[in-house]
Amino acid sequence: MNAWICCSLLFFVLAAARPVFAANSVPASTNLPGAEFPRVGPDLSVTVRCKAREAKSVKLEGGAGLVKAPLDMVKNPDGIWSVTTPPAVPGFHYYWFNVDGVRMNDDASRLFFGWSRDTSGIEIPEAGVDFYDAKPNVPHGQVRMQWYLSKVTGGLRRAHVYTPPGYDAEAQARYPVLYLLHGAGENERSWIEQGRANFILDNLLAAGKAKPMIVVVDSGYASFPGGSNKDRNGATAAFEDVMLKELIPLVDSTYRTKTARESRAMAGLSMGSGQTLAITLKHLDTFAWIGAMSGPPRQGFDAATSYDGVFKDAAAFNAKVKLLWLGAGTAEDRIHASTVAMHEALDKAGVTNVFYSSPGTDHEWQTWRRSLLEFAGRLFRE
Amino acid sequence: MNAWICCSLLFFVLAAARPVFAANSVPASTNLPGAEFPRVGPDLSVTVRCKAREAKSVKLEGGAGLVKAPLDMVKNPDGIWSVTTPPAVPGFHYYWFNVDGVRMNDDASRLFFGWSRDTSGIEIPEAGVDFYDAKPNVPHGQVRMQWYLSKVTGGLRRAHVYTPPGYDAEAQARYPVLYLLHGAGENERSWIEQGRANFILDNLLAAGKAKPMIVVVDSGYASFPGGSNKDRNGATAAFEDVMLKELIPLVDSTYRTKTARESRAMAGLSMGSGQTLAITLKHLDTFAWIGAMSGPPRQGFDAATSYDGVFKDAAAFNAKVKLLWLGAGTAEDRIHASTVAMHEALDKAGVTNVFYSSPGTDHEWQTWRRSLLEFAGRLFRE
Repeated sequence: MNAWICCSLLFFVLAAARPVFAANSVPASTNLPGAEFPRVGPDLSVTVRCKAREAKSVKLEGGAGLVKAPLDMVKNPDGIWSVTTPPAVPGFHYYWFNVDGVRMNDDASRLFFGWSRDTSGIEIPEAGVDFYDAKPNVPHGQVRMQWYLSKVTGGLRRAHVYTPPGYDAEAQARYPVLYLLHGAGENERSWIEQGRANFILDNLLAAGKAKPMIVVVDSGYASFPGGSNKDRNGATAAFEDVMLKELIPLVDSTYRTKTARESRAMAGLSMGSGQTLAITLKHLDTFAWIGAMSGPPRQGFDAATSYDGVFKDAAAFNAKVKLLWLGAGTAEDRIHASTVAMHEALDKAGVTNVFYSSPGTDHEWQTWRRSLLEFAGRLFRE
Repeated sequence: MNAWICCSLLFFVLAAARPVFAANSVPASTNLPGAEFPRVGPDLSVTVRCKAREAKSVKLEGGAGLVKAPLDMVKNPDGIWSVTTPPAVPGFHYYWFNVDGVRMNDDASRLFFGWSRDTSGIEIPEAGVDFYDAKPNVPHGQVRMQWYLSKVTGGLRRAHVYTPPGYDAEAQARYPVLYLLHGAGENERSWIEQGRANFILDNLLAAGKAKPMIVVVDSGYASFPGGSNKDRNGATAAFEDVMLKELIPLVDSTYRTKTARESRAMAGLSMGSGQTLAITLKHLDTFAWIGAMSGPPRQGFDAATSYDGVFKDAAAFNAKVKLLWLGAGTAEDRIHASTVAMHEALDKAGVTNVFYSSPGTDHEWQTWRRSLLEFAGRLFRE
């Protein structure tokens, strides 16, 4: 074999082995240090790789803003499987590989607790948007892990508590509190790690666009002693008891809070949206600010009778509740339609409420980051 | 086919499909809610399962206290692979599956950041030992995520800060500080999630066996701006600069600390042990309490010349340093031998030091939990 043929063959092998990905693509910000893949292209297409050399079939699966349906990956000559997605929706998406029927995380990405387990996540940047960025030159609040004994569940629980910048230094100041609930399959870290709630608040506060507040994120799961771990219905009475009888008193005694109902808000997404409406509308003496993000579709919402008729006397409701906020992403289809229907029915019944529509986003974290931005900016203003 | 044969066949199928595991075994405490496997037997054998039905070969790999070498798993008639290990060493072990050459986490277990990625972990209980348990009826300190801008690295960093029970309520009290460093491939969460440092402190404090203190856990990785992410040498000058010029001043200005050197300790494990000795022995005006856990084996330690001769004047060293603590697990072989050699050389040179030997444990977290228990109990006493 002469040198020319040898070089040509080598070139051919190298060219064939090179995975196909968009020019000018960059490693995702959620990659582990040093990982070159996944890569995000200028068009927001994503190229992923999976090293399951012996597999017969590898698919990319995950959030709707990344892959609408499982995407077949292709085995390159070097044995590594890869695929490039169509342009993704900006924001955070869970994803994983389906390797011969087995769900496998991408060991090149950070993992985030979702789908009831640690799951690979990818961040797709949104052009010109930085409200949830961790900005170096903005004052940062703390997020505190707060353990407490729950007599309701018979076990130790852990909440995460955001205290705004200056909380420790301004030793006399007292703060209103927002209780923020996660969705099904997530946990008390999700609003921080995926949602970046602390950075959203830091940035709002630095811009003077929100009132300083404490934000409390607990697990939305609770069951009475003896209850199975599988008893995962988010709307359990146990969670309501934990919130009302334990968590709120704990927060009010541990942190420098304002304890009047006018200084207490609750909001949640998906399962947490259902929990928020179920709990706040039953306890208007405790909460004055209510946020329902991407709530599960509900059949036949009726302003006169739903939620034990709390909306029936619209004037009384309007006088008592400072904010009733509903939101959903336009790509959430049934959830969006159902939220619009509730909003319109409330309007028609004379119940003051705000509806926010997140353009182009699905039942994913970009909807809820935007929702928090919109909701938190309105809170605790007279 | 008559009913008897049918039943017999059914019995045979069910019996054959049932995975083999120890009687009276229980799900590991590190399992995700509802997961029946991995199971820990009364003899501390561990049975794991992996659903890679299409795989040709599946092995169990992980920490030395769980599997000394890759352990072949067996495919059961139902297509699920399983294996039962020999009795494991008590404590925390990383583990994963090797599926046809691909490293895969166990989706039934919690993941912990180790080996430079999120990795499955299993907790093996130690009979009669509860010093690192999350006890419901003991007061719990908080663990605070503390973001800060580093001019040294040019980026935002996140430390975790343990404040002891009562920190917020006793608004005039000031506390000594322990800086605690992790090992290679881990991060600023590892001392909390794997090491349970906060629970160890909570339990020590509740028993009156330690002085109330603040514990700071940062990432041990740092590089100067423009430095590659791959520049992972833990003993970098960048980390030393972050610690001395940024983190300590930040902690002293943000928390109610005692700022004299007699109220400042540093300890670390493995890579962090090397960093601790490198930093503290160079900065004895900053640190008075030193803990080196499972340090990397070093060639030819010489009390007269090593560490720039800091041990040469033993009397001066002894007068200045409140505690020089060395420790290792007996199963750490070379690390243990190397630590003993350093201890004996220091003794011979008249340098006061303490050596702790953790019985039966390897280069794993049970060694370091015990080390923290022993070290923290001695701190900040006159």
